[in-house]
Amino acid sequence: MAIAWSQRYAARTRRIQSSVIRELLKFTTRPDVISFAGGLPAAELFPVQAFQRAASRVLQQSGPSALQYSITEGYLPLREWLCARYAQKGVSLSPDNILITTGSAQALYLCGKVFVNPGDAVLVESPTFLGALQAWNSFQARYLDVPIDDQGLQTAQVESALLGAPRFAYVLPTYQNPAGTTMPLARRQRLLEITARFQVPILEDDPYGELYYDQPPPPSLLSLDLQRLPHADIEQGSVIHTSTFSKILAPGLRLAWVIAPSEVIRHFVRAKQGIDLHTSSFVQQVVYEVIKDGFLREHLPRLRRAYRQRRDAMLAALTACMPPQVSWTQPQGGMFLWLRLPPTIDATDLLERAQQRNVAFVPGSAFYSRPTPEATHTLRLNFSNVDEAAIHTGIARLAEAINSYAPATLPA
Amino acid sequence: MAIAWSQRYAARTRRIQSSVIRELLKFTTRPDVISFAGGLPAAELFPVQAFQRAASRVLQQSGPSALQYSITEGYLPLREWLCARYAQKGVSLSPDNILITTGSAQALYLCGKVFVNPGDAVLVESPTFLGALQAWNSFQARYLDVPIDDQGLQTAQVESALLGAPRFAYVLPTYQNPAGTTMPLARRQRLLEITARFQVPILEDDPYGELYYDQPPPPSLLSLDLQRLPHADIEQGSVIHTSTFSKILAPGLRLAWVIAPSEVIRHFVRAKQGIDLHTSSFVQQVVYEVIKDGFLREHLPRLRRAYRQRRDAMLAALTACMPPQVSWTQPQGGMFLWLRLPPTIDATDLLERAQQRNVAFVPGSAFYSRPTPEATHTLRLNFSNVDEAAIHTGIARLAEAINSYAPATLPA
Repeated sequence: MAIAWSQRYAARTRRIQSSVIRELLKFTTRPDVISFAGGLPAAELFPVQAFQRAASRVLQQSGPSALQYSITEGYLPLREWLCARYAQKGVSLSPDNILITTGSAQALYLCGKVFVNPGDAVLVESPTFLGALQAWNSFQARYLDVPIDDQGLQTAQVESALLGAPRFAYVLPTYQNPAGTTMPLARRQRLLEITARFQVPILEDDPYGELYYDQPPPPSLLSLDLQRLPHADIEQGSVIHTSTFSKILAPGLRLAWVIAPSEVIRHFVRAKQGIDLHTSSFVQQVVYEVIKDGFLREHLPRLRRAYRQRRDAMLAALTACMPPQVSWTQPQGGMFLWLRLPPTIDATDLLERAQQRNVAFVPGSAFYSRPTPEATHTLRLNFSNVDEAAIHTGIARLAEAINSYAPATLPA
Repeated sequence: MAIAWSQRYAARTRRIQSSVIRELLKFTTRPDVISFAGGLPAAELFPVQAFQRAASRVLQQSGPSALQYSITEGYLPLREWLCARYAQKGVSLSPDNILITTGSAQALYLCGKVFVNPGDAVLVESPTFLGALQAWNSFQARYLDVPIDDQGLQTAQVESALLGAPRFAYVLPTYQNPAGTTMPLARRQRLLEITARFQVPILEDDPYGELYYDQPPPPSLLSLDLQRLPHADIEQGSVIHTSTFSKILAPGLRLAWVIAPSEVIRHFVRAKQGIDLHTSSFVQQVVYEVIKDGFLREHLPRLRRAYRQRRDAMLAALTACMPPQVSWTQPQGGMFLWLRLPPTIDATDLLERAQQRNVAFVPGSAFYSRPTPEATHTLRLNFSNVDEAAIHTGIARLAEAINSYAPATLPA
């Protein structure tokens, strides 16, 4: 008799849902579609030749070690390189404070695995990164939502959320996904003060910090936390910080890192042993070979220039095309901006009309832990993976879709 | 005030322990040590040049796609290649029956994630693969142990374990890790009959099946299960099957796969989205480029020849050096054999004496879900990653360590 699989899944499995975005991405692979939906870096900016040289050199010089099992913690020269890089920003680390992960998705997952019991609360921004919600749903997390505004997390509302005793506070302070907002220095400091008082750790997700288009962002929460401590000793710190090579080199590598006090890293390491033993040694050594001699000094300015032009193109197109009832954030970096519709237009309904016009975006509701009024009337636009001409065409089509609603739904 | 991290870890975290083997491996990196402890393939047999050519070609021909985000399910041409390969063995699959994983460690982890509630039982062989126990400990699994003998899982004892209602039965039928044993055809069929009666799925772990040194192993449990079904339809099947490129190409890639009815794969995909989104697209495309034109037809015989010589060397050295109170398994493939000591010698104590003589192995106790008398007096020897001369020297040293016990502990 066949197995009744549906009766065999664990309780937590019922909370794991397929990503709305990934379903939508199937539509966006059609060649005639202009997609603002994905969160993809521009593939034409990947440094393919640098990877060719690096892969060849790694295999020639240390093929057997690059293809053999290695330690869970990650390739030591790569962790030392990260130490040197953070030292330039005033953050003093040892390799024991770093775990190399299979994408920063895995760093978020590890925080769930190590900290979240079923029913435990996690403080999140509202809206927040969909992938984090997906990862922690599988640990049966509850969410304490704190709204953001054009300056990111509204710190004035953090204290009441902390009364709910979250395991940690998850924050994207810089060029937030989905909203493109950035917390100014004062808010960052205020957040650290409040969470320290409640002794709640912060999980700082910083995938976009290097992608600034006007001026560098304020110091990271990790950096500000250490500045407050005697000897800036990370072992006394309260911030877990994750970042990634996905946005500054290429996401298909699945290579990222997480920084924390060494005690926390040891717990992450033990959990990761059971998940994938270690991140590909081959990928780690190739990336180290690409970056070790200062490659990013030239590559990052190239990325910033290209993405800045796309951001500017999108802001210009929105200004030119959108009716006055629509507003949006002004991202100073990263890959996204956030559009607010009149409360009479539902973003999911709008998506249908947009798709009829071969343009796609992600409705805001995907980024909220629970339904809210704002979720219905917002949407995320990605500008990193669309060239300037297509940005103009796509935004014009989107404006057309919005204007297709009866004038009554667009109050003057 | 500093965060009291130790009070913040989730309940499950307390069950995640560091691997005994990984701690031991630190000792074995000393150049004067002969290590039978690891589970490493021979790095000198990795096809480094094939990887060089493949990496170069992939980056040249499809660099942007190899470095971009991709779908969780895995690179379609690679899944199609696996379909063709299994078809040669009479197993008919579609790509929807395959998920590419970040090592088969991840496939085992996904089974825990998708099927195991805290306190649920899993049927395991005793002894079994340590990594599986580690993965499922983190889901607070209980274990129903079924002993193995020289022919693998003792099917006569399976029925009483199934009364404990395990979520699945985890079996390594071919060249088992740690014991090197292989289930004959009759036992495989018997196991499928019994588990079908109880409607308990089987998780078949098959990392070593291609590494046979005498003749090919009996058909996999997956293959035998399908033979029993109308139209050999995997959608009606009860076996989840995992295998890997780690042992036939290189483990540092972290590239493996899991095969199951498509409904189960969909659950795995959703769980994997939260864990690492997808396995490195770069690694997947490079491996596909290496194997797509029949490379394994020449590479596998090379591996089999080299490992056969090492197995033979170890069996000969054991016969030549060991006192008569010591016995061992006769592996027909894979990377390990299993040594039984006289009940008066404790393997952990012996390890100390062996380390003094610069030789290492893993004590049997690492491979049991709970202490048993047998666990104390057994040990695992790896023969794949030591050359023949070192095998002779190392086994002689190990025999010397055993003979260092007072004659009274070695009864005639």
